[in-house]
Amino acid sequence: MNLSFKTAGSPDAGGLKSRYLQVRAATEALCAGLHPEDTVAQSMDDASPVKWHLAHTGWFFEALVLEKAFGGYRHFRDEYRVLFNSYYNSVGEQYTRRNRGLLTRPTLREVYEYRQHVDRCICDLLDGSSADGLESVIEVGLHHEQQHQELILTDIKHLFSYNPACPVFREQDRQPPQCESTEPRWLPFPEGLYTIGHAGGDFAFDNETPAHRAWLASFELASRPVTNREYLAFMTDGGYRRPELWLSDGWAVLRQQNWNAPLYWRQCNDTWVTLTLSGLQPVREDEPVVHVSYYEADAYARWAGARLPTEQEWEVAAKSAPIEGNFVESGWLHPVPVARDGDNVQQIFGDVWEWTQSPYGSYPGYRPLNGELAEYNGKFMCNQMVLRGGSCATPLSHIRPTYRNFFPPQARWQFSGLRLARDAR
Amino acid sequence: MNLSFKTAGSPDAGGLKSRYLQVRAATEALCAGLHPEDTVAQSMDDASPVKWHLAHTGWFFEALVLEKAFGGYRHFRDEYRVLFNSYYNSVGEQYTRRNRGLLTRPTLREVYEYRQHVDRCICDLLDGSSADGLESVIEVGLHHEQQHQELILTDIKHLFSYNPACPVFREQDRQPPQCESTEPRWLPFPEGLYTIGHAGGDFAFDNETPAHRAWLASFELASRPVTNREYLAFMTDGGYRRPELWLSDGWAVLRQQNWNAPLYWRQCNDTWVTLTLSGLQPVREDEPVVHVSYYEADAYARWAGARLPTEQEWEVAAKSAPIEGNFVESGWLHPVPVARDGDNVQQIFGDVWEWTQSPYGSYPGYRPLNGELAEYNGKFMCNQMVLRGGSCATPLSHIRPTYRNFFPPQARWQFSGLRLARDAR
Amino acid sequence: MNLSFKTAGSPDAGGLKSRYLQVRAATEALCAGLHPEDTVAQSMDDASPVKWHLAHTGWFFEALVLEKAFGGYRHFRDEYRVLFNSYYNSVGEQYTRRNRGLLTRPTLREVYEYRQHVDRCICDLLDGSSADGLESVIEVGLHHEQQHQELILTDIKHLFSYNPACPVFREQDRQPPQCESTEPRWLPFPEGLYTIGHAGGDFAFDNETPAHRAWLASFELASRPVTNREYLAFMTDGGYRRPELWLSDGWAVLRQQNWNAPLYWRQCNDTWVTLTLSGLQPVREDEPVVHVSYYEADAYARWAGARLPTEQEWEVAAKSAPIEGNFVESGWLHPVPVARDGDNVQQIFGDVWEWTQSPYGSYPGYRPLNGELAEYNGKFMCNQMVLRGGSCATPLSHIRPTYRNFFPPQARWQFSGLRLARDAR
Amino acid sequence: MNLSFKTAGSPDAGGLKSRYLQVRAATEALCAGLHPEDTVAQSMDDASPVKWHLAHTGWFFEALVLEKAFGGYRHFRDEYRVLFNSYYNSVGEQYTRRNRGLLTRPTLREVYEYRQHVDRCICDLLDGSSADGLESVIEVGLHHEQQHQELILTDIKHLFSYNPACPVFREQDRQPPQCESTEPRWLPFPEGLYTIGHAGGDFAFDNETPAHRAWLASFELASRPVTNREYLAFMTDGGYRRPELWLSDGWAVLRQQNWNAPLYWRQCNDTWVTLTLSGLQPVREDEPVVHVSYYEADAYARWAGARLPTEQEWEVAAKSAPIEGNFVESGWLHPVPVARDGDNVQQIFGDVWEWTQSPYGSYPGYRPLNGELAEYNGKFMCNQMVLRGGSCATPLSHIRPTYRNFFPPQARWQFSGLRLARDAR
Repeated sequence: MNLSFKTAGSPDAGGLKSRYLQVRAATEALCAGLHPEDTVAQSMDDASPVKWHLAHTGWFFEALVLEKAFGGYRHFRDEYRVLFNSYYNSVGEQYTRRNRGLLTRPTLREVYEYRQHVDRCICDLLDGSSADGLESVIEVGLHHEQQHQELILTDIKHLFSYNPACPVFREQDRQPPQCESTEPRWLPFPEGLYTIGHAGGDFAFDNETPAHRAWLASFELASRPVTNREYLAFMTDGGYRRPELWLSDGWAVLRQQNWNAPLYWRQCNDTWVTLTLSGLQPVREDEPVVHVSYYEADAYARWAGARLPTEQEWEVAAKSAPIEGNFVESGWLHPVPVARDGDNVQQIFGDVWEWTQSPYGSYPGYRPLNGELAEYNGKFMCNQMVLRGGSCATPLSHIRPTYRNFFPPQARWQFSGLRLARDAR
Repeated sequence: MNLSFKTAGSPDAGGLKSRYLQVRAATEALCAGLHPEDTVAQSMDDASPVKWHLAHTGWFFEALVLEKAFGGYRHFRDEYRVLFNSYYNSVGEQYTRRNRGLLTRPTLREVYEYRQHVDRCICDLLDGSSADGLESVIEVGLHHEQQHQELILTDIKHLFSYNPACPVFREQDRQPPQCESTEPRWLPFPEGLYTIGHAGGDFAFDNETPAHRAWLASFELASRPVTNREYLAFMTDGGYRRPELWLSDGWAVLRQQNWNAPLYWRQCNDTWVTLTLSGLQPVREDEPVVHVSYYEADAYARWAGARLPTEQEWEVAAKSAPIEGNFVESGWLHPVPVARDGDNVQQIFGDVWEWTQSPYGSYPGYRPLNGELAEYNGKFMCNQMVLRGGSCATPLSHIRPTYRNFFPPQARWQFSGLRLARDAR
Repeated sequence: MNLSFKTAGSPDAGGLKSRYLQVRAATEALCAGLHPEDTVAQSMDDASPVKWHLAHTGWFFEALVLEKAFGGYRHFRDEYRVLFNSYYNSVGEQYTRRNRGLLTRPTLREVYEYRQHVDRCICDLLDGSSADGLESVIEVGLHHEQQHQELILTDIKHLFSYNPACPVFREQDRQPPQCESTEPRWLPFPEGLYTIGHAGGDFAFDNETPAHRAWLASFELASRPVTNREYLAFMTDGGYRRPELWLSDGWAVLRQQNWNAPLYWRQCNDTWVTLTLSGLQPVREDEPVVHVSYYEADAYARWAGARLPTEQEWEVAAKSAPIEGNFVESGWLHPVPVARDGDNVQQIFGDVWEWTQSPYGSYPGYRPLNGELAEYNGKFMCNQMVLRGGSCATPLSHIRPTYRNFFPPQARWQFSGLRLARDAR
Repeated sequence: MNLSFKTAGSPDAGGLKSRYLQVRAATEALCAGLHPEDTVAQSMDDASPVKWHLAHTGWFFEALVLEKAFGGYRHFRDEYRVLFNSYYNSVGEQYTRRNRGLLTRPTLREVYEYRQHVDRCICDLLDGSSADGLESVIEVGLHHEQQHQELILTDIKHLFSYNPACPVFREQDRQPPQCESTEPRWLPFPEGLYTIGHAGGDFAFDNETPAHRAWLASFELASRPVTNREYLAFMTDGGYRRPELWLSDGWAVLRQQNWNAPLYWRQCNDTWVTLTLSGLQPVREDEPVVHVSYYEADAYARWAGARLPTEQEWEVAAKSAPIEGNFVESGWLHPVPVARDGDNVQQIFGDVWEWTQSPYGSYPGYRPLNGELAEYNGKFMCNQMVLRGGSCATPLSHIRPTYRNFFPPQARWQFSGLRLARDAR
């Protein structure tokens, strides 16, 4: 397998092992408060049961690393090869995606045993000499696992939203930060030929490469994401009732699904409350709006007399900012208000994934990875929009300015929000 | 509430309490071998999670007995009143049926606590004097719980069928009875005016009443149900490929769902195997065929040059036979061959529910119960066919000759088989 | 082909030819006012384009008579054998039912040429000697054609209901009869053993045979159908908002399709108007209610403290009445009020098909016809309810007391109404 | 209304009138051979009946020109304002799109009368002085009508494909051009900053503007579209059975719809034939492949070791070529082989629309038109892919190098094909 993922020149196997153990442990720590029952159910085709996420991330190492490393590798359980294959046709058959919630066996305990088995094998591999050439796949596997850490959070939130008793995923014993949001400023960027995409030795997914030139007209970007206060003004102004603000497909979805607010918002005695991973809470006006679809983000921007940024515009701005913010490590699992509005771009990392107006496609000169990993990113380059910047459910070490997330325009269950852009005046 | 369920003239509260405890314990014993994960999932709209069955049968006593008995009764959990209401509009709102598998909370442990709470309250009620007039509802509740015992078995079997690992619900350490089935005999019944339906003081559901007269032409009934051997002959003769054998609606379902054998049958190296609650096993030719729809039963009968009996014909024959057979108490949880072919009708109780050609409707003079229980049976009198006799998953004490079960003609996940009838020559 | 349809002992071929020509001409007369465009469209799977009806009724004679009569019969067009086969698997393949509206060719003119070709061949046959044994099939074909005459009317009415301009099928230059309906009387019938079904030499469909005995408990039948006035009282009393009045399946359909009145009713400035084949008109209170489903009929009866009659009860009453009433020949194509309330049963024939509580099934001893005609009636004996008595769209010569019509319980586009029954007091 | 469509500086009203009459007449000439029946039916939601196209193109002038020009303009028929509104929410309500085939009235004759009425009014307008400012809308209306001319052809072809008799839209009395296709050459284009989009005074749609700069890496473009011969090689090599060649969404559609060849291809005695507007004909290997979806085009390109061009790359190449080719005026209504392979790019205009890898979106600085025409293009900028170059069903005067057509990636009923591109070596 000729892997061209960008990884540090000579990955230190010792460092890799400790990072491996750290990432794997983080996944399990995330699920510690769940009951076995919670880990079974699947609330829609696009979401997966927590138990399935736990097993699939093990499967990834088994199918793409252990099978290659050890001739005659014996699988922990033969049937897992099909059950926990997500979409890799080159590995083989897959269990029907929409039926994942019917897999009550293996039990949660058995899935943890599976993970331990995989961990032992991978550590053996890294301790020995047979990992040659597979370090980079293990590296991909860790980033893959971090993606599923975020999905565990978004999927359990979606599942819990069907329960009238509003189960709490994580109790909070702290008050979330509060501060009043100020007016966003428009940050100007000049026209010119910019370099977009990833270069250099650090890890990046294939879809971030190759670095290439793009001409951008001058533009302005809002200094912070759109807040609930601003979004409520859109709603009050009839935002969900005015077809002229919406893309045609978006208006059709709105009518079919009776959208009248972001996902998880509920009206309760004339005030809006929202479901969070820490239970129902009032919609706080200074927080970035979250759980909106691309269609809602686009309609809001049109209403506001602006537009969404392209992913290139976003990336140019992000490269000027430090990678810091409200990530999963903060423990809030929800966007928080920006502490203060400085001179620079704010909250561009963390809090909410920001929808861009860019459909997800290949960069000029893009080559998918060889082998099974060719299916990782490239085959989804249609009907999806790019989001950037990570969210309050993303691990900090997972994000970078060139990172491209992608979801269909109607998706709302991710921690997705928006930031405005406009052409230079 | 003016209850007119037929119950013994003066129900002995002491006897009722012991029967109550016995039936409730039987439900829990049935589920003892399941993991919490197994009790969450719902494999189709018509089936429910085991956990839901456990809670709903408690709900029944809470909503229809405890609320009436105790002014200001405090519910175990307020939200359960909606979550575990199946279809009683007169009690109130219901949680969406097809989403029952999304209710990961309450956990299995909490559901058992709920059941214990209900049990304590009912026992208090039966120990005291406040049960006046509610004994008959409790009686209904016990028969209701027995119905759900059977559904727990059929629903978990259906769920497990989606798991490629074929989970075993109950291990068997015995060999099932084996014996060769002989040719069925045609038992003759003369034309005449017969009494159909339930009369007398014992318990019966409202849909079995009133007893009434019906004129039957002379007919003949097969001495035993159709076996797998006979059904395989139908299959070999192109039974699933010949539209002239099928009802129009049945042929449409067959084509849409690609039926080519009873539910749970799989072809494996040129032999048929079938999923049972004790794992995969070969299709044994001397056992009654099971898990066929009304459409398949009807097509088989047409192919065999016979027909299905009416429910009146079946009842006339069943009244001449003792209530004995392969019920849930035998522990097989699967039909077994008939031991020998005597002079009388065989296997008319137990083993498999027998499809009749009678659509489920009301008897002449039928009156539904008053109050909430009016919704128990009457509102389903459309688009369903009557099955008779109980199955290997039915409690023995639940069945009687006048008992009417009913399912839509395409349903296959119940333990449903058939017995032939024909007009007298 | 061993035909056992009941037909007059020795059908007079001369009489048959003249009746043939009369029935065929009546079909075409019915369609005279339609534009070619009107005859193409299909408004739902259960309805067919007028052009298709015109062709299919010709196909019936071609496939079931001419092919048998003439060795080497040359079809008018080969492809019609598939295009216009409705559901006869024994004849061969069928064009997809739901796509009939896509068959813009053959044109209407070509379909009429097809009909003329068939007419010539049938007349040749009846003039010659080769019809031996096929007269009875031709007889079936004429009754079949009369059924399609009624379907042409119900299907074009359904189609026109989608056009906001409310096209008129037939202008009326007369005022419809008006008279005030009086209270219906309850006509008593004693219990006893009755003969049900058709006997004797006249034509009847196989599903009306054999004549057989049935025991009926004493009952009472309303002297006339339910009127719009009565039905409006049901609506005003919340009939469409009270689940306790409805069968479970009916309530589900009501909610899914937002039923709040009979089909074709529209509220217009606080009054109800209804679409008729002669355009929009006010809902006239003295007319029998029409275009209600079985579910609505059943709910109305429950609300009224009564029930629907069984088909046996209806037939017993109908046998005492002359076959007269508001049939298609009156030209109203809509129910009219009863002229006066005499001593006997009123409007039992014509005006509206009356839903009975009887599921459509086989009579004891029923044998379908041999050959292709076996598919005519028997294969539909599931999931349908029996209606009796004919309607304002039925030819008078088509109806008789034993005639059994059948439709699924949710069907509303036929001219279907109801009459109440109750158990004797 | 502040229209900013690019039109010739001062449009000459006289020239406009003659062009108006010419375009309108061309629409009707196209439909001359159809029967009234042919113009009614709608074969899928995305297609419309011919009669509806004829009326809608009249509606466009009525709603967007005549209503503005004449205060108190009286509509030809009031109900047409809703019936023939396609998707303009700013004009008002619309008749349900998927039900257009149920509108048997107005008849074809009435629709032609409607068109004549509109024509008279527009001519009056252009003869007088009241058109001030509306010339540009009339201009849009003519280009709009040309778009519907092409849709009439694609939609009737789709409709006729459901008829087993394969109706012929236009007889051909000539043999189509034949010549052997040669190997395509790779035409090189250097990297650089190019101007993309429309500038200048000629007509263009808003989505082609503004002209803007884009940086393109060096690339190569095939000198001609992919032929049936080449596409057959892809099929023979398992193209439709190898998931690794397909986008994930494309593979899902392929499996759901059982794609195994381009739309309209049928296998007949081991050879492929295809439905054309002139009837069934063999698949001719030298013709450009047509009626493939984006998914198929993309899979073919991957199989061929190449890729689809971006719309920018395509436009750069097209600007170097004369606008000539096989357009609707040739009368073939089907792609034809390229006459000879010259030095330049071949068949870049006409024959087949060429899928690009560019999702349909807005150009930098894009502003939709004001007023109702804002809905013309902008609201569809999601979930669609850009096609370029026009087809054998496009009017020659309708096309230009900057013209952007767009359809969802699964669409196949347009005359869509492909041309390969690749990165420079």
